[in-house]
Amino acid sequence: MGAPRLLHVGIKDVSFGEGITVIEPANLYGCTIGDGAFIGPFVEIQRGATIGKGTRVQSHTFVCEGVSIGDECFIAHGVMFVNDLFKAGGASRDPADWNKTTIGSRVSIGSGATILPVTICDDVVIGAGAVVTRNITKPGIYMGSPARFHRAVRP
Amino acid sequence: MGAPRLLHVGIKDVSFGEGITVIEPANLYGCTIGDGAFIGPFVEIQRGATIGKGTRVQSHTFVCEGVSIGDECFIAHGVMFVNDLFKAGGASRDPADWNKTTIGSRVSIGSGATILPVTICDDVVIGAGAVVTRNITKPGIYMGSPARFHRAVRP
Amino acid sequence: MGAPRLLHVGIKDVSFGEGITVIEPANLYGCTIGDGAFIGPFVEIQRGATIGKGTRVQSHTFVCEGVSIGDECFIAHGVMFVNDLFKAGGASRDPADWNKTTIGSRVSIGSGATILPVTICDDVVIGAGAVVTRNITKPGIYMGSPARFHRAVRP
Repeated sequence: MGAPRLLHVGIKDVSFGEGITVIEPANLYGCTIGDGAFIGPFVEIQRGATIGKGTRVQSHTFVCEGVSIGDECFIAHGVMFVNDLFKAGGASRDPADWNKTTIGSRVSIGSGATILPVTICDDVVIGAGAVVTRNITKPGIYMGSPARFHRAVRP
Repeated sequence: MGAPRLLHVGIKDVSFGEGITVIEPANLYGCTIGDGAFIGPFVEIQRGATIGKGTRVQSHTFVCEGVSIGDECFIAHGVMFVNDLFKAGGASRDPADWNKTTIGSRVSIGSGATILPVTICDDVVIGAGAVVTRNITKPGIYMGSPARFHRAVRP
Repeated sequence: MGAPRLLHVGIKDVSFGEGITVIEPANLYGCTIGDGAFIGPFVEIQRGATIGKGTRVQSHTFVCEGVSIGDECFIAHGVMFVNDLFKAGGASRDPADWNKTTIGSRVSIGSGATILPVTICDDVVIGAGAVVTRNITKPGIYMGSPARFHRAVRP
């Protein structure tokens, strides 16, 4: 029996704007976080991910490599982003096999949602617990598994 | 580039009963926790939430402001409560826009479930991975997304 | 009002193989972890669970008592395993009431999936956000809630 190599979460090689708050423990590395953002506890944000200005990422959320989130978004609790579609029958260790996700600005994603590699336009609401499997190109409220258009946002 | 403000999870302004166990790290603030409760690791419980006597809240669960949970409940792992329905098209920072959730006593909620702002009566079981979107007024077992009545509990 | 008993996550009574990496904080106790495994941050693995050789368990995942995972698996982020079906109408504290889960080798489970107590054969992919409620005996890709066969893996 061996002794495991023990590493610890932390903040490493992160490009921070001004006026950001982070609640630790959080595991942030190699990512870019815009002015005025908020990062809650028990969050992991991987290398190359981008969080826009004024965007709030709540507790228990995981943002993977390849994800870009716009400005003034609200990513609620326990949201899981995905970049590897396991297309060859399993997880790949080669970043060339991973897909990108682009989230516009003023997008709110409900708690417990799962976001496959997609593009979501500005001014979208994703309901809690939804599973987003396709691109969203029209503002509005989307819900369910797989997520479907529910209604326009009432002005 | 700025330096972020770093805060840390902890236990702040919590009203604890007797005989409670908390596994840290946990982020508990401004909430009330009843006698004999158990709070697992990687849990966040927000201001104003109430956890009843003998209730167990397992790892990775998030209990938001506005949630009241009764006695002798079991809230499993990775359960996400929701208070903001994003009705105006996005997250609101005004607590007046948030909705309340009331969970009765002897309610068991399975791992990975998402609980929208609803009322759930006593003696209910919510299946793992369910998304509860409506009030539940009759004891029994509820499953799926959205959660529907599955069967009565066999005596 | 009392003072709670405060415990802290850690690594206790774990049987480790060679060449394992663990990112702390993690809560690992009484489990067995095979050579070359990787355990991400904010993970809990309970007593009696087994993780195979070369298997990677990503952040925010919960592996309960009674779960056995084979070799070269990839368990993504925020995956919740379940052992208690609440059959008597609520959570049981008696391990005799808990069910077992057996995951084969070369199984990849997507982020946010929920795995009820089942057996999954070798060479299976479970999509992100899926809820697996039945045994899987045929290799391939399974998706949805409840998870259903989607297609074979293309060679």
